[in-house]
Amino acid sequence: MLRNLALVALILCCTYEGALAVEPSEMSLESQVCLSCHEGLTPGLVADWRASRHAHVTPEQALAKPGPERRFSAQSVLDSKRAGFVVGCYECHGLRPDEHKDSFDHFGLRISVVVSPKDCAQCHPVETDEYAISKKANAHANLMANPVYHALVSAVDGLKVSSGDEQTTLAPSPETLGETCLGCHGTEVKVMGMKSVVTPMGAMQFPDLANWPNQGVGRINPDGSTGSCTSCHPRHSFSIEVARKPYTCAQCHLDPDTPAWNVYSASKHGDIFLSSGDKWNWDSVPWRAGQDFTAPTCATCHVSQVVTPQGAPVAPRSHDFASRLWVRLFGLIYAHPQPKSGDTTVIRNKDGQPLPATFSGEPATPFLIDPAEQALRKARMSAVCRACHSTDWTQSHFKRLDTAIEETNQMTLEATRLMTLAWNSGMANSANPFDEYLEQLWIQQWLFYANTTRYASAMTGAHDYAAFKYGWWGLTTNLEKLRHDIVKKEKQAPDKKERHK
Amino acid sequence: MLRNLALVALILCCTYEGALAVEPSEMSLESQVCLSCHEGLTPGLVADWRASRHAHVTPEQALAKPGPERRFSAQSVLDSKRAGFVVGCYECHGLRPDEHKDSFDHFGLRISVVVSPKDCAQCHPVETDEYAISKKANAHANLMANPVYHALVSAVDGLKVSSGDEQTTLAPSPETLGETCLGCHGTEVKVMGMKSVVTPMGAMQFPDLANWPNQGVGRINPDGSTGSCTSCHPRHSFSIEVARKPYTCAQCHLDPDTPAWNVYSASKHGDIFLSSGDKWNWDSVPWRAGQDFTAPTCATCHVSQVVTPQGAPVAPRSHDFASRLWVRLFGLIYAHPQPKSGDTTVIRNKDGQPLPATFSGEPATPFLIDPAEQALRKARMSAVCRACHSTDWTQSHFKRLDTAIEETNQMTLEATRLMTLAWNSGMANSANPFDEYLEQLWIQQWLFYANTTRYASAMTGAHDYAAFKYGWWGLTTNLEKLRHDIVKKEKQAPDKKERHK
Amino acid sequence: MLRNLALVALILCCTYEGALAVEPSEMSLESQVCLSCHEGLTPGLVADWRASRHAHVTPEQALAKPGPERRFSAQSVLDSKRAGFVVGCYECHGLRPDEHKDSFDHFGLRISVVVSPKDCAQCHPVETDEYAISKKANAHANLMANPVYHALVSAVDGLKVSSGDEQTTLAPSPETLGETCLGCHGTEVKVMGMKSVVTPMGAMQFPDLANWPNQGVGRINPDGSTGSCTSCHPRHSFSIEVARKPYTCAQCHLDPDTPAWNVYSASKHGDIFLSSGDKWNWDSVPWRAGQDFTAPTCATCHVSQVVTPQGAPVAPRSHDFASRLWVRLFGLIYAHPQPKSGDTTVIRNKDGQPLPATFSGEPATPFLIDPAEQALRKARMSAVCRACHSTDWTQSHFKRLDTAIEETNQMTLEATRLMTLAWNSGMANSANPFDEYLEQLWIQQWLFYANTTRYASAMTGAHDYAAFKYGWWGLTTNLEKLRHDIVKKEKQAPDKKERHK
Repeated sequence: MLRNLALVALILCCTYEGALAVEPSEMSLESQVCLSCHEGLTPGLVADWRASRHAHVTPEQALAKPGPERRFSAQSVLDSKRAGFVVGCYECHGLRPDEHKDSFDHFGLRISVVVSPKDCAQCHPVETDEYAISKKANAHANLMANPVYHALVSAVDGLKVSSGDEQTTLAPSPETLGETCLGCHGTEVKVMGMKSVVTPMGAMQFPDLANWPNQGVGRINPDGSTGSCTSCHPRHSFSIEVARKPYTCAQCHLDPDTPAWNVYSASKHGDIFLSSGDKWNWDSVPWRAGQDFTAPTCATCHVSQVVTPQGAPVAPRSHDFASRLWVRLFGLIYAHPQPKSGDTTVIRNKDGQPLPATFSGEPATPFLIDPAEQALRKARMSAVCRACHSTDWTQSHFKRLDTAIEETNQMTLEATRLMTLAWNSGMANSANPFDEYLEQLWIQQWLFYANTTRYASAMTGAHDYAAFKYGWWGLTTNLEKLRHDIVKKEKQAPDKKERHK
Repeated sequence: MLRNLALVALILCCTYEGALAVEPSEMSLESQVCLSCHEGLTPGLVADWRASRHAHVTPEQALAKPGPERRFSAQSVLDSKRAGFVVGCYECHGLRPDEHKDSFDHFGLRISVVVSPKDCAQCHPVETDEYAISKKANAHANLMANPVYHALVSAVDGLKVSSGDEQTTLAPSPETLGETCLGCHGTEVKVMGMKSVVTPMGAMQFPDLANWPNQGVGRINPDGSTGSCTSCHPRHSFSIEVARKPYTCAQCHLDPDTPAWNVYSASKHGDIFLSSGDKWNWDSVPWRAGQDFTAPTCATCHVSQVVTPQGAPVAPRSHDFASRLWVRLFGLIYAHPQPKSGDTTVIRNKDGQPLPATFSGEPATPFLIDPAEQALRKARMSAVCRACHSTDWTQSHFKRLDTAIEETNQMTLEATRLMTLAWNSGMANSANPFDEYLEQLWIQQWLFYANTTRYASAMTGAHDYAAFKYGWWGLTTNLEKLRHDIVKKEKQAPDKKERHK
Repeated sequence: MLRNLALVALILCCTYEGALAVEPSEMSLESQVCLSCHEGLTPGLVADWRASRHAHVTPEQALAKPGPERRFSAQSVLDSKRAGFVVGCYECHGLRPDEHKDSFDHFGLRISVVVSPKDCAQCHPVETDEYAISKKANAHANLMANPVYHALVSAVDGLKVSSGDEQTTLAPSPETLGETCLGCHGTEVKVMGMKSVVTPMGAMQFPDLANWPNQGVGRINPDGSTGSCTSCHPRHSFSIEVARKPYTCAQCHLDPDTPAWNVYSASKHGDIFLSSGDKWNWDSVPWRAGQDFTAPTCATCHVSQVVTPQGAPVAPRSHDFASRLWVRLFGLIYAHPQPKSGDTTVIRNKDGQPLPATFSGEPATPFLIDPAEQALRKARMSAVCRACHSTDWTQSHFKRLDTAIEETNQMTLEATRLMTLAWNSGMANSANPFDEYLEQLWIQQWLFYANTTRYASAMTGAHDYAAFKYGWWGLTTNLEKLRHDIVKKEKQAPDKKERHK
């Protein structure tokens, strides 16, 4: 009570220019305090939230929705005192302060800067549990704690410094890592203490956060959790519509390495989305195939709860993004069955490398899902396809994908054979396999061209990508360039041509 | 009568989960049978069709529309018994079963898997006739039956296999051809017999189709026809709106080889479409310049029937996509007047090659349209431009395009001169002119950089494409790379520079 | 009075097919004359204008709007006789005929072809004054009158012609310049006399304009002014909505050299715009953060008058596009503080070059804004960020940008060191530093890869651009290619690797 009086006093005292009185209705007193300043200080943020579902629905109301329509997945409202308040600033930023190293005292309220999946789990525990076991949630360590991938990151992002003829590659700066790989994979946000910041309201104390801001999918948060729900549900609307639109995935899944958006936009599905999507029903839960949308987006196939117009289930929602994926198209360095664990640092191939396949293409089978699990996941995905396509259409499509996987893996193998020649002959040095001219051609083969060809196949037709834009044109000409640089130097032109049958 | 009773019985018997009773109103009994299962089996497909014009208009009603508004181009309804039914499943899939090698018995109805342009011609014969003579309808054979282009396809798409130092290029797999070149050009869909498919309703017999699914513009269909209306009017909405939007053309016309969408999106026209298109009237027939749309899309300039807001004709509709094109910007290997026939396999240049120009740039005039026909087509296109631009503006624009064509052809000639040097000196082997490192640089010159420069010019201004992105930057640096690799090896740096005046 | 009668007679006489009687209401008699023919002749243009604000508001009404909502920035209506007419054809094309070398007599009215910023200044003088001092208004001379940049333009756009082993680069044609660099930078539109044009109304006399059409931002107009308001406010709607949408900026600011649109579209801001922008209020003046829009577009950060939902100012409008920019990310060849003057031809670095930094990276400080001005501009930009982000978030973001600038400048320096080696050793000839193979690799380093990395950082996260697409992958592999071609030739593989620490 005393605390409430103090909060009200705080609201009344607030003198920040432009701040408005806020409606007391279903908003907690604490969140009203926040708005009393932030309505004027960060008006865009507040207006965005005001238009959101969070600003209009209380946990109590959300819990009362019937099964498939419910967006609230907890069995009950954890904090019953807050069940009747809309989900305001304090309802999220005030959670679990003792677990948050980034919590601090702010005008009498203890709040955290970084709202984490564990905070979201108060209302959405099913989604955060699914997410927690995914490769996405492990994306930071999967990249940075794997010595092979880490060597690639360092070779690419490290500043090059010369002294005479010697060039040294420095360790990448945290800033550059945050702009590049860790922008998507997630940084480790660390609390370095407190610091003074001069704001429009004067100098104030805030947690001093290293590697912040960041919204990468595998962000390591100050409360020890991993992930960032705002990667796909951007704050402060946290909209399901935005998450369902492919532009969200396109923040990271872009050519040349993971061209999901690019090939989608050039596919028939993408054509229909781009041409007709403005008439779709983006907010409906569950999502009715053919009625709410007439072509799939990324979310449709990989995440969303999809039903028929009559409400019959097509696919259950899952925030483990691999739940409908049997093969991993992303070559490391070959496409391979999905790993069993979202934590891929545990993988060791037969050569002892932390890679899901050897350089000669043998998959690290003990760490990858078995054929039964592959079949299960393929059946889940096929069910989505069959909402619009026949069984035969669907099977024929995936048969084509099998060929794309097999042939691109072979094109990677060819490049790797040539690269091995170069390593063995001393033309290149395999100590770091990623930092020389020839090695970088080799990287392009599996990281850019093989991946693009497979993505284009999987997403039902981005033919110019598969043919010319990073696809077979890339696979073929890049291999020829490698051959030209590695093999041909020692030969004469007439001999060279004998290889063409 | 007996048959109808059997069909009704079939509807009543249908037990597939999720299937709904369908409205009997204007739908044929056969299509009701289809829906009795497919409403639940492929609900997205059915819902898409339900929202379409086909589901709401009967041929009788379509025929009654006044001239310019009519979308039905037949003189009468061929099958008078069906004139009063909306265009449902059976109305298309049940057509011409004897001509369809892919027709089969499906629950008592004889239907075909692949609906072809000849089926669509029942109601839209003018459009399919126009289409049938176009290069698009001939796109499969134009590519695969031309030995030069076929060699390029094989060099790019064929799997490379090594044995010792020898590398062999295998013939491309049908699956990879279907994902790449033939994804757009169209596959040859062949019926290999019948096969059993395990569907959600149990094992069933379907035609075993090779090279299916496919929606390429020159698809060879099991009924012997060529083309695929769903390339641009995707099923099952068959929407004119989708076909009028540039995303549809962007399925195939993409950089780096045919960057129509890319340069359009960067042009003033593309800017206006992307910024304002959501307010346009996309379904109006005819299409009123300035009122229904305020900037052209691909369809406006190349296909659509365009009128003034007052209804005066600007351009008649044509599904022969070259009817407003006088020059073929797509270099083979030089830009050239449009071919006389949509079947380009008949072309022979003076060197006997099946190409519209010799390697030295001389056009195969007897096979290309003459100046009078060029002028006629240019006048048709100019009429569209003049809906918004002055005569002088239009002429000045096309004068600039003339220069772009001339100069890019010369830049191709320069590269071809260097390539010829390499062939003659034994640096490369012209037996297959597409499979070596130097040859692939040469291909880029005419296929990527010259094409992009011309497309950017034609579409009124994608200046960064013409300058840096595959345009003059590509033409210039690629030529310099060729010169560096072919000519400079034998020279010293000081001499090299003399060529710059 | 006599003149008016003549004009009315002209309208009545107009026999051009399709022309409509136009409403006399608030439209000047002169503009009615225009429409009496052009409604039928250029119906799209007229319909576009009819839907515009210009067609519905008179200067008198525009002047009467309260302060922040006013779009008319003159203190009064210059031509009081026209204050009550909507802004029609003649109101713009009839202005200042004596200053317009492109004015001509057209059916009794003296009109100009090219409406220039000085014409727009009749009603919008604040905007045109701001614009006139910007780099954009000076973009033609900044490129063409700077001998270094001019050499680059000539090397790229000039036709290459061979004679024997000698290759000559011709001066670029005006047409190609107009399609490439000057498409964006603006051509010099010159009046060459009068010419006869055969129009749908017969042969008529028009000014013979060289380098027309063009809408480049620094166009030199026949009335001596520079710039083109239609670059961003395309005719004839002159819409603020279009100018506020990023597609407008994307006409020129594209990868690989200035990838603003590309990185924006891949950023969180771009995601929100692309996913939600169709619900925003694009026409509101002033523009309310969070209410009218929930993520910034190019215009929000760089141009627009932004306020809070309550109307408190966030940023004033400015058409000097550098008013919120302290650093120039676009490397010439290094990123550097913004130049003091929009006319950058006056700049001389310590080596006497007309460049804002020496090749070794020292900025031409006397010509660049000082730290105080930098701080002022950064504060203006930060105010826009803080409409949605905290002060700390904003500062941390810009700290990361500082690192991106520093490191990309160093990666340019490394490449320049190698290039200097090549120049000094005779491997390349620095007479023209832009026309040889090695030099073109070097250009890519600063023009494509360093720029992209900085743009991606500045626009808050286009991580795949910063990492793989033209970003660090480009910086690193391109530098390695330079090193491979320049340094490694003389070394053995084992030695080479010592540089990796």
